Amino acid sequence: MAERVIVCEVGPRDGLQMSRSRMATAAKVRWIEAIAAAGVPEIEVGSFVPPRLIPQMADTAEVVQAVRSLPCLVVALAPNLHGAQAAAAAGARRVSIPVSVSEGHSRANTNRGTMDQVAEVRRIVEWARTASPGLQIEAACSTAFGCSIDGVVPEGAVVRVAEALAAAGVDSLALADTVGYAHPAQIRSVVRAVRAAVGAKMDGLHLHDTMGLGLANALAGLEEGVRNFDASLAGLGGCPFAPGASGNIVTEDLVFMLESMGFQTGINLDRLVSARALLHEGLPDEPMHGALARAGLPCTFVPAGRAAA
Amino acid sequence: MAERVIVCEVGPRDGLQMSRSRMATAAKVRWIEAIAAAGVPEIEVGSFVPPRLIPQMADTAEVVQAVRSLPCLVVALAPNLHGAQAAAAAGARRVSIPVSVSEGHSRANTNRGTMDQVAEVRRIVEWARTASPGLQIEAACSTAFGCSIDGVVPEGAVVRVAEALAAAGVDSLALADTVGYAHPAQIRSVVRAVRAAVGAKMDGLHLHDTMGLGLANALAGLEEGVRNFDASLAGLGGCPFAPGASGNIVTEDLVFMLESMGFQTGINLDRLVSARALLHEGLPDEPMHGALARAGLPCTFVPAGRAAA
Repeated sequence: MAERVIVCEVGPRDGLQMSRSRMATAAKVRWIEAIAAAGVPEIEVGSFVPPRLIPQMADTAEVVQAVRSLPCLVVALAPNLHGAQAAAAAGARRVSIPVSVSEGHSRANTNRGTMDQVAEVRRIVEWARTASPGLQIEAACSTAFGCSIDGVVPEGAVVRVAEALAAAGVDSLALADTVGYAHPAQIRSVVRAVRAAVGAKMDGLHLHDTMGLGLANALAGLEEGVRNFDASLAGLGGCPFAPGASGNIVTEDLVFMLESMGFQTGINLDRLVSARALLHEGLPDEPMHGALARAGLPCTFVPAGRAAA
Repeated sequence: MAERVIVCEVGPRDGLQMSRSRMATAAKVRWIEAIAAAGVPEIEVGSFVPPRLIPQMADTAEVVQAVRSLPCLVVALAPNLHGAQAAAAAGARRVSIPVSVSEGHSRANTNRGTMDQVAEVRRIVEWARTASPGLQIEAACSTAFGCSIDGVVPEGAVVRVAEALAAAGVDSLALADTVGYAHPAQIRSVVRAVRAAVGAKMDGLHLHDTMGLGLANALAGLEEGVRNFDASLAGLGGCPFAPGASGNIVTEDLVFMLESMGFQTGINLDRLVSARALLHEGLPDEPMHGALARAGLPCTFVPAGRAAA
């Protein structure tokens, strides 16, 4: 049996929040349906943040309600208790809460210092345990590999934040290379240090391809035992602090790498690549990245998950 | 002391041979001078092939003569004894001889079967040992990870060709992912198998970024102990069998990854990125790839080779 790797599509959240124009709600839903139909097991469909800050996410409750019955785990980002409650009410099955390891990014992103945001996570966990017991709570340690505001982020700081979040009772922890500064040796080192501190509760990586090292970083994480990766169809998105940079690692290229290497994702690559058409339909002016869509599958390709596809 | 990795710039050969228009000889020389001035230790400056087949390479003897005194190892590709003799006469210090592992590619590329081409390599070695004793002879095992003509290339075939080339007396052996079909697990496996057969004589990887896995594949090779990598500035080039695919892995992105990870390349990244301007000057219509040039260096970057730069 091929080993399983979980890919979480975050384009509808991390990709769209950076888009120049807004994708219509109906177009978002059609696009998410196509991603789910390709077999993607988890999709982060939006974020519950104030619409005045990120207008592209104003319809997240509507989107969650429209896609909650799809055969995938519906995830939503929420920066605070209010957002988590809205996510649960709409029908999200997991909330992802960003906690920046670097103070500068934490204040810029959530208007709170790092440890204040950890305290907010604790409040969310305490609320969820009684009010919404089925809801999974994930914390994403942003800027875990460097910060465009504070610069170098010490490994010890990542470990301390991860420990505090584990103590707060989250179900899972992901490390995010928010600005795309990580390199493979650093991925290995930080993943190892965090796992030594909190164990397999740290189970995910959220990588950006700013420097072109996204898939090399994913490989480094994979070799350290990480089995959950965020990615964005067509590499949608960007980084407000790195002009011209691409967004998250490209979902279809990641899946191609994983399946080629013998890891089963449950994703049908042809259908996944076809879902780019719906993204393009909904956001015709947004540039789309990705090698697989450009070059096509090699004639030598054998998917690990052929049986599942 | 940081460990050393050798990067060989192959853009003037592998990049330019695919270009739509021809770069003028003087422009090639200026570009190669800029690459050498950035500290790149080895540059493959052209190939001694019939001009009717690859007109872009018709001036290779002139280029070699013009750059032979630069502080870098001047390499030229030669598919046969005649070409190797011309390379030595012009002043190249290493010839790289392609030997396709797959029969179909071998016949398409050199008009000879694989083992006939191995015999040609033996003739080149025998000639060089007496007529040109300072000349380094490298064989590049093309299509070592898959072939767009023959499909899957069995690992055992790569090992047999590598053994035959080692027995023919080459100084070094590289494995080439000519069409860019390799994945990281395959890189590890093939490198390991070939090294088990011929030892450290197999010391180089030549990778293409067709599927976006180029740097992940380089990482896999690096972790298997490979310390010589070909790359092409701005990812120049392409693959005639994969329309729209990019060329070799991007030199500046590879160097960024290596230096970030603590490997010393002796290359000054700012100067290397500046050399793109000379490439663009010589070939204004050619698309240039690369993340570093687009995003700039992260504020957290510390080169391993700071002392050398």
